[in-house]
Amino acid sequence: MIATFTDFGTRGPYLGQVRAVLHQLAPTVPVVDIFTDLPAFDCRAAAYLLPAYSAGLPADSVCLCVVDPGVGTGRRAVAVRADDRWYVGPDNGLLSQVVRRAGSVAASSIDWRPDFLSNSFHARDLFAPVCAMLANGEPPPGGAVDSAALDRPQWPDDLAEILYIDAYGNAISGLRAAAISPGAQIELSGCRCAYRRTFAEAEPSTPFWYANANGLVEVAANGASAARLLALEVGRTLTVVIQSS
Amino acid sequence: MIATFTDFGTRGPYLGQVRAVLHQLAPTVPVVDIFTDLPAFDCRAAAYLLPAYSAGLPADSVCLCVVDPGVGTGRRAVAVRADDRWYVGPDNGLLSQVVRRAGSVAASSIDWRPDFLSNSFHARDLFAPVCAMLANGEPPPGGAVDSAALDRPQWPDDLAEILYIDAYGNAISGLRAAAISPGAQIELSGCRCAYRRTFAEAEPSTPFWYANANGLVEVAANGASAARLLALEVGRTLTVVIQSS
Amino acid sequence: MIATFTDFGTRGPYLGQVRAVLHQLAPTVPVVDIFTDLPAFDCRAAAYLLPAYSAGLPADSVCLCVVDPGVGTGRRAVAVRADDRWYVGPDNGLLSQVVRRAGSVAASSIDWRPDFLSNSFHARDLFAPVCAMLANGEPPPGGAVDSAALDRPQWPDDLAEILYIDAYGNAISGLRAAAISPGAQIELSGCRCAYRRTFAEAEPSTPFWYANANGLVEVAANGASAARLLALEVGRTLTVVIQSS
Repeated sequence: MIATFTDFGTRGPYLGQVRAVLHQLAPTVPVVDIFTDLPAFDCRAAAYLLPAYSAGLPADSVCLCVVDPGVGTGRRAVAVRADDRWYVGPDNGLLSQVVRRAGSVAASSIDWRPDFLSNSFHARDLFAPVCAMLANGEPPPGGAVDSAALDRPQWPDDLAEILYIDAYGNAISGLRAAAISPGAQIELSGCRCAYRRTFAEAEPSTPFWYANANGLVEVAANGASAARLLALEVGRTLTVVIQSS
Repeated sequence: MIATFTDFGTRGPYLGQVRAVLHQLAPTVPVVDIFTDLPAFDCRAAAYLLPAYSAGLPADSVCLCVVDPGVGTGRRAVAVRADDRWYVGPDNGLLSQVVRRAGSVAASSIDWRPDFLSNSFHARDLFAPVCAMLANGEPPPGGAVDSAALDRPQWPDDLAEILYIDAYGNAISGLRAAAISPGAQIELSGCRCAYRRTFAEAEPSTPFWYANANGLVEVAANGASAARLLALEVGRTLTVVIQSS
Repeated sequence: MIATFTDFGTRGPYLGQVRAVLHQLAPTVPVVDIFTDLPAFDCRAAAYLLPAYSAGLPADSVCLCVVDPGVGTGRRAVAVRADDRWYVGPDNGLLSQVVRRAGSVAASSIDWRPDFLSNSFHARDLFAPVCAMLANGEPPPGGAVDSAALDRPQWPDDLAEILYIDAYGNAISGLRAAAISPGAQIELSGCRCAYRRTFAEAEPSTPFWYANANGLVEVAANGASAARLLALEVGRTLTVVIQSS
């Protein structure tokens, strides 16, 4: 399976062109689009969504990861084997958390170049063909590189920010829920949100936090848009408040 | 074929994760997304779109139906065989009109549970695997239940409301066109809309009603957005006006 | 491969219904959606996007082309073999530039009619089945017509207008970049945009023009939305300014 994680947006011709390449070069491999609207240009924010939303994919899945404001510059293109999945994308920090959290990891530079390489669309011209190679069982077309160099040591292990607001108005953060006690509250936009296990346990239209289906702290509301209730935007900071009992 | 009818919205990671499960468990079955933006949280409105927009699907298609504000509560999960198609989803009225209109219908509860069942994403964890089972020719994983219990007798046979506004600004109602005389007018937002057989028969930028390609009464305008002309919103009530001649 | 180019919008049930027909009639053929939001109702603008965005598709691809404000009228339905690809759609000028630019071209009317033909959704009822036939290797279901009649001679060879604004805020024009010297500037919204080869070469947040990955002149900004910076809308006119040195 090839899974796409991009900031292309839900509109426009980009994802279709990438899929055309994938279907041509790896015709028997299914393609699923997990994120088409990762935070645009923001490889740091996207880095914390990647491991959470790729964790459930089958073994040997190939993740096409493209948030690539430096396309057309000298930034390196890489392929990473992290545990039992492949990740292909630019070396701009986007793969930092995948690399940091993996039990076993091996990285390669992508040295292969296509006959035609545009200046602005490496997802189609470079990354998609490499994903097809890997999905077809071929090795990465380049030499081994130090995987630690793909990390960004100055970035935290968890990111206490809103990274994504979904169509329901639920706000996904970069905090892993497993590390936070259900007794804690999440402070956001001057409001303290209590923990609820499910939507149905929450009072209607009162923002709460819960461990979402991909293991991240998410601020939501029962039958309403938490983003609207709290005037949330991507990038807003959260604070974990541990209550003294 | 597996067809999805959800209120996930066109953005975000939910549909992709559902597709990843479907491709893994039913690799040879094509998946099409019919609605990804059914009215959010509104299982009553969505109930009237389901039969109209699933009617054209091939025999033995499996419809994954998810408008599920009660996810994580005790609400029942069900699989319904209605005429020659399967419908899988929550028992919250979403399948009421499918059940009511079917010539033959048989319902099962879904008693099977996956190894991991999140509190908020049964579409991925429960309904998608069951859809894959049915698409693979397996029986529903649960016992027979009374299909009449899936209906909501207090809901009408046709819903005289705007249920969906498409990207052109056409407004789809819950009224079946076959029951309405072309001589009738549709009153909406204080405006009376006459019947036209085709867009081209209508005066430009004048709202009219017609029988849409799925058999529902739709209010539209030739070369313009009826929703903008009439300031329409989902939920707005329509009145059928039979003119005395 | 079947590639879709439509103005359906990214929302709603239309593309899914078309895909359901394609998967049923051509089950082994992959389908990719290149454009789902071509300029609505505007077959002239869309005509200049079609050749640019279909050029990279594999040989024998079938392009389903639907911007069809005249659906349900007497407008002709056609299938065109242009170089080594098929194009299926209404004869309303949408295929004019494909026909004009092709090295070899042959056109057929579509005389076949399905058992059920709605008045408003020929994409699903007529064009999709014909695309499936062609993808399956069958001949076009109709007689030869003069391909020159599909052109619109009064339309220019290049269209100096903004035809599409993508999710990043990049503005795609109908001008082929190969015909324009990199020394030229593009005047738009009272601003002169210089040429840059890549995004990274451009000063941050300063609009520039470049040859996009599909060969069209595109106005963009490094790390920002050119559409917002210049208050752009689809339909805005561009002027190519050749500087005297």
